[in-house]
Amino acid sequence: MNLTVGQIAEILNGEVAGDPNILILGISSLEDAQCDSVSFLANPKYEQHLYNTHAAAVIVGVDFVPKQSTKTVLIRVNDPYLSFTALQAEYQRLTILKKTGIEAPVHLGTDFSHSDGLYLGAFAYIGDHVTIGKNVKIHPQVHIGDHCTIGDHTIIYPGAKIYERTIIGAYCNIQAGAVIGSHGFGFAPKPDGSYQNIPQTGNVELGNHVDIGANTTIDCATLGTTRIEDGVKIDNLVQIAHNVEIGKHTVIAAQTGISGSAKVGKHVMIGGQVGTVGHIHIADHTKVGARSGVTKSTKSDQILFGVPAMDRHGYLKSYAIYKKLPELMACIQELEQKILNLTPNSPK
Amino acid sequence: MNLTVGQIAEILNGEVAGDPNILILGISSLEDAQCDSVSFLANPKYEQHLYNTHAAAVIVGVDFVPKQSTKTVLIRVNDPYLSFTALQAEYQRLTILKKTGIEAPVHLGTDFSHSDGLYLGAFAYIGDHVTIGKNVKIHPQVHIGDHCTIGDHTIIYPGAKIYERTIIGAYCNIQAGAVIGSHGFGFAPKPDGSYQNIPQTGNVELGNHVDIGANTTIDCATLGTTRIEDGVKIDNLVQIAHNVEIGKHTVIAAQTGISGSAKVGKHVMIGGQVGTVGHIHIADHTKVGARSGVTKSTKSDQILFGVPAMDRHGYLKSYAIYKKLPELMACIQELEQKILNLTPNSPK
Amino acid sequence: MNLTVGQIAEILNGEVAGDPNILILGISSLEDAQCDSVSFLANPKYEQHLYNTHAAAVIVGVDFVPKQSTKTVLIRVNDPYLSFTALQAEYQRLTILKKTGIEAPVHLGTDFSHSDGLYLGAFAYIGDHVTIGKNVKIHPQVHIGDHCTIGDHTIIYPGAKIYERTIIGAYCNIQAGAVIGSHGFGFAPKPDGSYQNIPQTGNVELGNHVDIGANTTIDCATLGTTRIEDGVKIDNLVQIAHNVEIGKHTVIAAQTGISGSAKVGKHVMIGGQVGTVGHIHIADHTKVGARSGVTKSTKSDQILFGVPAMDRHGYLKSYAIYKKLPELMACIQELEQKILNLTPNSPK
Repeated sequence: MNLTVGQIAEILNGEVAGDPNILILGISSLEDAQCDSVSFLANPKYEQHLYNTHAAAVIVGVDFVPKQSTKTVLIRVNDPYLSFTALQAEYQRLTILKKTGIEAPVHLGTDFSHSDGLYLGAFAYIGDHVTIGKNVKIHPQVHIGDHCTIGDHTIIYPGAKIYERTIIGAYCNIQAGAVIGSHGFGFAPKPDGSYQNIPQTGNVELGNHVDIGANTTIDCATLGTTRIEDGVKIDNLVQIAHNVEIGKHTVIAAQTGISGSAKVGKHVMIGGQVGTVGHIHIADHTKVGARSGVTKSTKSDQILFGVPAMDRHGYLKSYAIYKKLPELMACIQELEQKILNLTPNSPK
Repeated sequence: MNLTVGQIAEILNGEVAGDPNILILGISSLEDAQCDSVSFLANPKYEQHLYNTHAAAVIVGVDFVPKQSTKTVLIRVNDPYLSFTALQAEYQRLTILKKTGIEAPVHLGTDFSHSDGLYLGAFAYIGDHVTIGKNVKIHPQVHIGDHCTIGDHTIIYPGAKIYERTIIGAYCNIQAGAVIGSHGFGFAPKPDGSYQNIPQTGNVELGNHVDIGANTTIDCATLGTTRIEDGVKIDNLVQIAHNVEIGKHTVIAAQTGISGSAKVGKHVMIGGQVGTVGHIHIADHTKVGARSGVTKSTKSDQILFGVPAMDRHGYLKSYAIYKKLPELMACIQELEQKILNLTPNSPK
Repeated sequence: MNLTVGQIAEILNGEVAGDPNILILGISSLEDAQCDSVSFLANPKYEQHLYNTHAAAVIVGVDFVPKQSTKTVLIRVNDPYLSFTALQAEYQRLTILKKTGIEAPVHLGTDFSHSDGLYLGAFAYIGDHVTIGKNVKIHPQVHIGDHCTIGDHTIIYPGAKIYERTIIGAYCNIQAGAVIGSHGFGFAPKPDGSYQNIPQTGNVELGNHVDIGANTTIDCATLGTTRIEDGVKIDNLVQIAHNVEIGKHTVIAAQTGISGSAKVGKHVMIGGQVGTVGHIHIADHTKVGARSGVTKSTKSDQILFGVPAMDRHGYLKSYAIYKKLPELMACIQELEQKILNLTPNSPK
């Protein structure tokens, strides 16, 4: 990052105890720190690491009093954790976002319009009639199809592929290898048992502040729009099928699949490796446990688990007994014998 | 799409009620339509949308009589749904397929042979000894390895990666980010607990009319050929391991994994997020429910579900009781007590 | 491969029975062989294939005596299977690894340092301050971010995306479309129900002899390092979240997901489509069956299965009864009736 301890303290509105001229190149935890790193101590239970760290400087609370002598410079701030997170964000701004300009070669289609602060990495492909907002960073080898629109401050990482007519909002982050707008799974059976492709002519729209994970795939709508609303966070290797709608501030963990035309509400939390069938509606504020399979529409505020998904508490109670099924079986056989013994004229 | 209402009616062999000179730019549903869209009404239950739509023109049945006044032009055809699908296909032809020619820069290996109608997008890489048929569309940033063959009318979307010696049939669609021919998971354990890589020197062959989803991976055979037969449809993020064979007109939904050397028959339907173990044979016409784990070879026409997969009907019956296991447990405990009470000389 | 039968025999230290001047172009199984292929016969149960093969030459044991006449040249060696694997490895060396030099165009950042034997395919992107060892092969369309280091003899296949500050050891193989160093899933909830991104400023380190499958994703650490140790083999479409650590010689099959900050020990075997929760520790030598969901830390040498994962033997015993739950239910109802009948004054 190439900042002195003094410059970091200034960014964080903190005070330096030690030499403010030491140059800091990286950020790390107390344990992993190298001699040119800055680290932080927020949780008192890690205090011992402070006395062994190699960090050049450590961000600590304004009232922190070391119990032993330390070799590192201290930067005193009101809230060490928040300050450290702010410093990380600054670090990202300085590294990821510092690039501007258009590298060569790139492909620029006709009618390309963009604003200030654009970075366009080498081997990026911009189709025709593309409009890009302010301060957008498009990394190398990205593909943007014809008639796409990309909002301000959005970052698209290397090799992500955006199909034609996709609309992406502001402040989105799209990780490497993500595919947005692919032609989804739509086939009509023919009398001979083969399948006829159904043309997929819709598009995808992402709202603002949407994050899409690496190698995640989002299919375009068959007709109309596959819609991901503001603030949605989608992890790696997730599959979003055609015509799905995901409501605001919903989070979806890795390797989950949402089938065609499912509507997911707002503020939903979906764990990893979950699947849903198509055409259902998952209500606002639903929580779906990892690896569940949701087969029916849900009511608000449910917590689901299992395949097919049921109430989480019930699932785990049943699973506790599932583990004991062999004992249960033995118990039933014993009861059968006892009843036989009680029954008059039964063979003893 | 830049067609007038009159031109669309001509394509569909329909009749226009209204102004035939209106220019149509896009296709959409009645609800999502904009003032330059064409839409359709096939199912009478959506008739109300016709009276509120913003569509410039709507495809309706030849006998359709509006119950209210409408602002849109009507295009009367024999079968509105089929006509609309035909129009979508025409739209795709006009947009996706219109491109021809070789953009710059591309990498062309030695001994590259191709026929008419080729589109080769910028930053595409063609290895040595590659043969490409008629009207093939290879989008930007695609990689085609040495000694590959690609049949007529096949479309390969941006950034798909095809390894050397892959053979792809005619009329295939390979979505963005798909990887075909990767070196699969083959390792021999060594005495020290480490692993020796087993060279993967086979290839992959796709038949005609095969569709491969976005970011799906298909490994080459260790030796010989991983084979995907005619008409197979594979969704996004599917894993096909080395030496697998998939029979004609089988469909595999998203995020499913087929393990090494498994043979999947013809006309099989495999749901999403399914897994199979290796070296098994899934019979023709088998149906495997979403999220199942198939651990044994199957007989023809079975419908499977669960992990390990069993008959679907049986699985769901068992699952219904699984949900009630706590009640079942309580019931058994009650029976135990009753038997105790019935037993002579038992403590009351 | 362009070797004569005689040259192959020399590589394998074998003896030729037949014409040593025949030119061999490929390697295959006895059944798939073409007239320019070499094949092998190791297992006597496949001997019949020898008499029908189209192979030009077949590697056989030194003592092998054909029971029928054959049309192929025989190459006699001590261990046909080992010799054949060695030949496959040689074939890979001759094909995949033969390329050297830098194709055009590529992007080379400032301060790029590399050793002999480099292959850098067209449209590859090398960021600033990248250091690459001997005999490294970087295929077309690969992205290597700033400050990356790549060890000797490592191969990175087309379109893999390596983020900044990744460290890759020697003899690694990274398949096409893999993403290493993506910014993982880290969000802090805000009072209004939206989420604040937590900056991901750590990196990824791969040891030596690590294999990464096609379209697999490995997130960088939030802080510090996501660490994959020597000899780890990871299959296709696997998700490794931020701050995970995977111990030496662990193998992970396709479509598995390891959640954030989980520590996986050495010599662990994880099947396909497994999931683990975050922050747990999977002990050395643990085996996890395909499709399991591991929710707790494990002790050494366990074999786990199910969701949540339990002892495999117990799981399968319970599952055997699960399949019979409807019968068990009927049995309990029968017992209830019998007890009712035994109870004095009960209604008959």
